[in-house]
Amino acid sequence: MTEIPYLRNAWYVGALSSEVAKGPVSRQLLGQSMVLFRTESGKAAVLADRCPHRFAPLSLGCVKGESIECGYHGLRFDPSGKCVLNPHGDHAVPRRSDVVSWPAHERYGYVWFWPGDPKRADEKLIPSLPFNEDPKTFAVIYGYVDVAAHYELVVDNLLDLSHVEYLHPLFRQSGGVAAHKTSYAVEGHTVTAKRLKPNVEIQGLMRFFWTSPSKRFDARANMSWNPPSLMSFDLGGTECGAPPEEGVCMPQTHMITPASDLHCHYFWSVARNREIDSEEASKKLYDITQNVFEKEDVPMIEAQQRNVGEVTDILSLGPVALDPDTPAVRARQILRDLIRSETAA
Amino acid sequence: MTEIPYLRNAWYVGALSSEVAKGPVSRQLLGQSMVLFRTESGKAAVLADRCPHRFAPLSLGCVKGESIECGYHGLRFDPSGKCVLNPHGDHAVPRRSDVVSWPAHERYGYVWFWPGDPKRADEKLIPSLPFNEDPKTFAVIYGYVDVAAHYELVVDNLLDLSHVEYLHPLFRQSGGVAAHKTSYAVEGHTVTAKRLKPNVEIQGLMRFFWTSPSKRFDARANMSWNPPSLMSFDLGGTECGAPPEEGVCMPQTHMITPASDLHCHYFWSVARNREIDSEEASKKLYDITQNVFEKEDVPMIEAQQRNVGEVTDILSLGPVALDPDTPAVRARQILRDLIRSETAA
Amino acid sequence: MTEIPYLRNAWYVGALSSEVAKGPVSRQLLGQSMVLFRTESGKAAVLADRCPHRFAPLSLGCVKGESIECGYHGLRFDPSGKCVLNPHGDHAVPRRSDVVSWPAHERYGYVWFWPGDPKRADEKLIPSLPFNEDPKTFAVIYGYVDVAAHYELVVDNLLDLSHVEYLHPLFRQSGGVAAHKTSYAVEGHTVTAKRLKPNVEIQGLMRFFWTSPSKRFDARANMSWNPPSLMSFDLGGTECGAPPEEGVCMPQTHMITPASDLHCHYFWSVARNREIDSEEASKKLYDITQNVFEKEDVPMIEAQQRNVGEVTDILSLGPVALDPDTPAVRARQILRDLIRSETAA
Repeated sequence: MTEIPYLRNAWYVGALSSEVAKGPVSRQLLGQSMVLFRTESGKAAVLADRCPHRFAPLSLGCVKGESIECGYHGLRFDPSGKCVLNPHGDHAVPRRSDVVSWPAHERYGYVWFWPGDPKRADEKLIPSLPFNEDPKTFAVIYGYVDVAAHYELVVDNLLDLSHVEYLHPLFRQSGGVAAHKTSYAVEGHTVTAKRLKPNVEIQGLMRFFWTSPSKRFDARANMSWNPPSLMSFDLGGTECGAPPEEGVCMPQTHMITPASDLHCHYFWSVARNREIDSEEASKKLYDITQNVFEKEDVPMIEAQQRNVGEVTDILSLGPVALDPDTPAVRARQILRDLIRSETAA
Repeated sequence: MTEIPYLRNAWYVGALSSEVAKGPVSRQLLGQSMVLFRTESGKAAVLADRCPHRFAPLSLGCVKGESIECGYHGLRFDPSGKCVLNPHGDHAVPRRSDVVSWPAHERYGYVWFWPGDPKRADEKLIPSLPFNEDPKTFAVIYGYVDVAAHYELVVDNLLDLSHVEYLHPLFRQSGGVAAHKTSYAVEGHTVTAKRLKPNVEIQGLMRFFWTSPSKRFDARANMSWNPPSLMSFDLGGTECGAPPEEGVCMPQTHMITPASDLHCHYFWSVARNREIDSEEASKKLYDITQNVFEKEDVPMIEAQQRNVGEVTDILSLGPVALDPDTPAVRARQILRDLIRSETAA
Repeated sequence: MTEIPYLRNAWYVGALSSEVAKGPVSRQLLGQSMVLFRTESGKAAVLADRCPHRFAPLSLGCVKGESIECGYHGLRFDPSGKCVLNPHGDHAVPRRSDVVSWPAHERYGYVWFWPGDPKRADEKLIPSLPFNEDPKTFAVIYGYVDVAAHYELVVDNLLDLSHVEYLHPLFRQSGGVAAHKTSYAVEGHTVTAKRLKPNVEIQGLMRFFWTSPSKRFDARANMSWNPPSLMSFDLGGTECGAPPEEGVCMPQTHMITPASDLHCHYFWSVARNREIDSEEASKKLYDITQNVFEKEDVPMIEAQQRNVGEVTDILSLGPVALDPDTPAVRARQILRDLIRSETAA
């Protein structure tokens, strides 16, 4: 089949900040083996994970000051990929001993990288996620899941939340799938699947933080997609009729990065404006969220992929289309158009 | 190499009844991913294990009344594969939303399916196994083993029981392989390897149920093959000179179904006319039988397959032929002839 | 890529003596599936691990006197591969029932085999390892590690011990990699990387056996390679100025045998002339050595191989060359030349 290329001039998430805090991270990203690390002064760096000497992964080494040291024979490389130390012989750095690097930036709890033209790697193009850097209002937890499937299957999953009714027993709601009615909107390159549910019973993750005696609330669950596969989820519930900002707000991010054609990385964050100092609440929320992804979503998505073999674009197989598929189909179209423009340029 | 097609107009075992009693079963059968289930009213059904909406496996869903519900977004399908419910939007069932189904029938503790022309799927063609539905006379235990080898290697194993002497220490008998002398008979499409051993010491599984003071008995161990790979095994022992039906009767079935060219399913049953109410006897018999298959036969058969790589017909490699190979060679010839007729038609 | 053939007229190690002492050993060697065994009288034998009857691995059988018996149907083969018993039918041994054999010899704690012209398989060509058969002076321990990488990557590892400084925290020494200065010598087909370190602090494995009050010693660590991939390591330390034989001597062997292009076997021995009756010392030394290989060297070497995919000659990728690579590059050249001569002949 014809593989669809990746969008290259875009920021992708490569690692959680909490991962690089522990040391170099090796990860397959857009078909490339990369090492992500943070120098002692705090600079994020993303290099090819292959020493030019004996092709050992640099990720098996460790950070030394502002560089990474190969764990096999000790060559060191700075964040630009330049070899800055050869400890052997006369210490001369051989020619052609640099490694490829990619623009990198750490923000919002994620390490971002730019696989396209470095000159266009503007940090302002990283989507704004203010709730992830507002510790006075929000506590944020982060997680990571490895998925053996094409990244767009994960996007499909998130843009059609009607699956919650069938796949996630914990979040089932009275009224069944009929209560999942969704409108959608496209603004620029952003696709949003909107679910506004006025005056419904307290439900989902919000029930854990709902302290009012009211048994019903106004709920919202709006999932926004931005190319290539960056999603933010405005989840919240308020007293019936009250403005959204007064209620429980649980804004989330779901960042999907292709590893290769049949494999992707799923980075997520869940913020909350309730019990923000409670480690117990954070742990409970992490366990629930990670468990739902690992035990319910990922097995289903990976089974889909196995069922279509190595096909990367399931639309090419002519699936039966249902009502709630519309936002995901639109997102796929927008991404195809952007990739086509980029490839043509 | 030239792959030999499967015989299509034939009943195969797809699952144990005890498996579908617990819910939908996913299984690779003759190269197809199928879901086998039993509706609430008890009807057996076999469908393609792939929802036409997002290609999720239906086996991850559950049985609802007379249909199976997809566990991802809730489409429902009846035993004929027809989509009978779309819970989304206006509830209209989209065109081209049915899935492939195969004729299915549950009998003798097995779920059978017919991968050929549905019009020819006559339930009377299922081989007669009366001991498996005669609970007043026989207790029956069932088991399943997955085998990473071509299905005919399992047939070879069963049609040449001289291997018992080398592979199964528990069933070795005095006299060694010389005591395994076997005649064989072909009647129609049935090949039987017959071993009648008058006046020998009590041996094999029968020793567990032999209560007479006699130290010797007349034993029989007759293995019959029917195409494509359905085997029944008449194992028994009587007082010397007494008619067979008076002794210990342990009629067995060994049903082999191809999963793919290099993988098969081995379904087995062992009936007995002794201690038929003893759960302890059933458990002991199950443990011994399953253990012999899993720890002794299957590792040997899988090692054979690994040793010949992806070859599916080991006769094409010119093996050295020994005396006890004759029944298996005859069975292979009969099956080849049937497949050739079917392919030509 | 063009695969480089194996050197065929050479002795390789196929198994440890301690392995064949327990029964037949199955091993992939130079792309061939072989069974290695020792007859009851003590003769070493290496045969193709595939019975000509049903292609079962002979290694699943057992040694009977001077032959090996197939564990499936009982054919027996002598060390030359000749079928010497058919227990079935009229007991006639069928034509074409022999299996391929290779010249084999057991010595120095290893079973050796010769994959080339049998007429040239002279046991005198096995390298001399006197310390492995001098139990009055030396205790010897042996080990085995499976490595998913081309065998020359293991040779590279051993001929450039500067990696110790980075990969093996236990053996790091004061002075760092600067203390690893190495000269090298080529004599005939032997390449030796020599490290003589006069008057250094007690270090490495030798520290466990150093009983003198001196805090410093003269250390040596000379690694010699012989084609195809047989290495001996002269490790020792003496009182400063004293002759080598008076000190701690820990002569080692590191024998690498290709399994296939991307897989090899690493057999090792470590002798010592101290505490030779101490089982505790042997156990400690075994645990340290096996642990260093399994947890430090092998993961790095396998990661190198994964990083270059299926490339078998990393020099073809134009690696950056450093000072300590010289001996390994010379060894590769000598081996290439020998293989070229053999292929041309």
